[in-house]
Amino acid sequence: MLDEIREQPAALERTLQAERNSIEQLRILLARERPRLIMLAARGTSDNAAQFGRYLLEITTGIPVTLAAPSIFTLYKASFQFDGVLVIAISQPGESTDTNLVLERAREQGARTIGVTNEASSTLARLAEHPFLVHAGREKSVAATKTYTGQMLMLYLLAYALGGKISLDDLARLPEWANHALTLESDIARAAERYRFMDHAVVVGRGLNYANAFEFALKLMETCYVIAERFSSADLLHGPIAMVEASFPAFLFTPSGVTWPGLREMFEKLGQLKAETLLITDRSNPEAPELSKHAIVLPVALDEIFTPIPYIIPAQLFAASLAMEKGLNPDEPRTISKVTRTM
Amino acid sequence: MLDEIREQPAALERTLQAERNSIEQLRILLARERPRLIMLAARGTSDNAAQFGRYLLEITTGIPVTLAAPSIFTLYKASFQFDGVLVIAISQPGESTDTNLVLERAREQGARTIGVTNEASSTLARLAEHPFLVHAGREKSVAATKTYTGQMLMLYLLAYALGGKISLDDLARLPEWANHALTLESDIARAAERYRFMDHAVVVGRGLNYANAFEFALKLMETCYVIAERFSSADLLHGPIAMVEASFPAFLFTPSGVTWPGLREMFEKLGQLKAETLLITDRSNPEAPELSKHAIVLPVALDEIFTPIPYIIPAQLFAASLAMEKGLNPDEPRTISKVTRTM
Repeated sequence: MLDEIREQPAALERTLQAERNSIEQLRILLARERPRLIMLAARGTSDNAAQFGRYLLEITTGIPVTLAAPSIFTLYKASFQFDGVLVIAISQPGESTDTNLVLERAREQGARTIGVTNEASSTLARLAEHPFLVHAGREKSVAATKTYTGQMLMLYLLAYALGGKISLDDLARLPEWANHALTLESDIARAAERYRFMDHAVVVGRGLNYANAFEFALKLMETCYVIAERFSSADLLHGPIAMVEASFPAFLFTPSGVTWPGLREMFEKLGQLKAETLLITDRSNPEAPELSKHAIVLPVALDEIFTPIPYIIPAQLFAASLAMEKGLNPDEPRTISKVTRTM
Repeated sequence: MLDEIREQPAALERTLQAERNSIEQLRILLARERPRLIMLAARGTSDNAAQFGRYLLEITTGIPVTLAAPSIFTLYKASFQFDGVLVIAISQPGESTDTNLVLERAREQGARTIGVTNEASSTLARLAEHPFLVHAGREKSVAATKTYTGQMLMLYLLAYALGGKISLDDLARLPEWANHALTLESDIARAAERYRFMDHAVVVGRGLNYANAFEFALKLMETCYVIAERFSSADLLHGPIAMVEASFPAFLFTPSGVTWPGLREMFEKLGQLKAETLLITDRSNPEAPELSKHAIVLPVALDEIFTPIPYIIPAQLFAASLAMEKGLNPDEPRTISKVTRTM
């Protein structure tokens, strides 16, 4: 898992180079035929990437986005209005039966379909009208890391292809920003020691980093067996905060920008409850590390829109380090396997 | 909270009677002007009702449904394609600032708008083109119960208004089915004793009962301060199941019908892990209580599509009973208040 975390800048660079031309072609096609609705279909970590894509695509393109509920198709076999819908299915191995079924059904019924996968010879790559590849190489660890950031990068590229306010020059800097995050590895390993006996936690993100709250929580559940809740700061306030007591471990993604005021309020609320809070932030938000005793600060100043990839890397490092502190093997969690088939 | 749980059959009956005519009128209007997309906007318990609505509306009408991410409008101020969109905002007090802002913005930009609230004089009722009222009376407990089932009923009625495969004669039986659930009150109070020292849990539902997993978990977090995770059986398999160890408390909604095979598989998996499982089911699924030592069986046989309201009632009773076992006041959880304002 650690090796794969470290491979991310190179993997991002490969994907940027390899998919650029196909993305430009797709951009020309979609300029003539703007979808009315985008449906994202995925499971597990890929579903967290989809959740990120939901925010990114709505914010940058204004096109409504929905996350598919696969059982609507696999179990309830609903007949569905697919006209004007662009379906984007995301799966690392490309063999997720329910995700593939959503895509197949959508394509039969006239939707435009895009597949995002690591495997050129997968069922998903074959089923999708427009397959795109995450060039992360085979992922060996059961807990996905480089796949997640690769899928997020593909969603930035798709936002660009859909006419979103995204520049390719900015995206070209993502590998460098990911590198900045990796420089924190030894600091994070030391910070993780403190959490040796943590058995529960809550992870909070908002907007573009909401998906990262899900992904960090998933890593903590998968590799450290921590019972990790995940909420937006707004949803946490609507009830679940009642469970937070003194010493409750809380992790917050706190970039600068529009989400910071709400997250600062949440941070202060958690402080009143004497929860123990760790912030993941960067140099563009100097207020965050001033407020919090515990903060992981990326050594670079980032616009909020480009924080999700660099911000998940410290979280991945934290989960891998904590698993090792706990004497667990983060590459092979108990109970689960790499490809999960569900209907 | 217990009093309000008990009021639900009467509250459902009042809502059915009072809103029937407006629903028939809306049905005529929507037959001429079918939406291309439905967007549901809500927070907290209302958002769980919206999650139920998402499945119900897609299954019965085939119209794509998306759950609004309010921050897209409140924080990112995205300009959004609202043509052909029907926005349904749901809020018990009707004063949720972010939900109201989504509705207001949508209406300005040409969307058709529906408001579902308990309060006729609320901001939401005033902002929505078509306001509908949940006739549950003022809800005094901070933990919402009769509001949730009232909102679910309104979503059945809206599915009917949208031409969905729902008959009003069936809906007329919901108060009676809710009454069947209430007969279990003393059995559930006894069952809850066992969980006096539970501090974490996972709740599992699928399809139409997926939202109930969220709502049951929210009640456990709000009123019992239990760290309650919630997943569909498919999502739980994709990673989080690694955290489940011997004696891990798991609650499963297990109706008969299309979701049962997957849930049975999840039940068996949890059994292999020696988790402690409690099923909520009814007489149409005799296999469930045969398999499980611990089951709450509604004394009536239900079609899966009508299980979500009767099934959440035992869960509400369980949370209220458990809070009392734990010496907590379920009406006034620590930290939270009835109206939560977020942006």
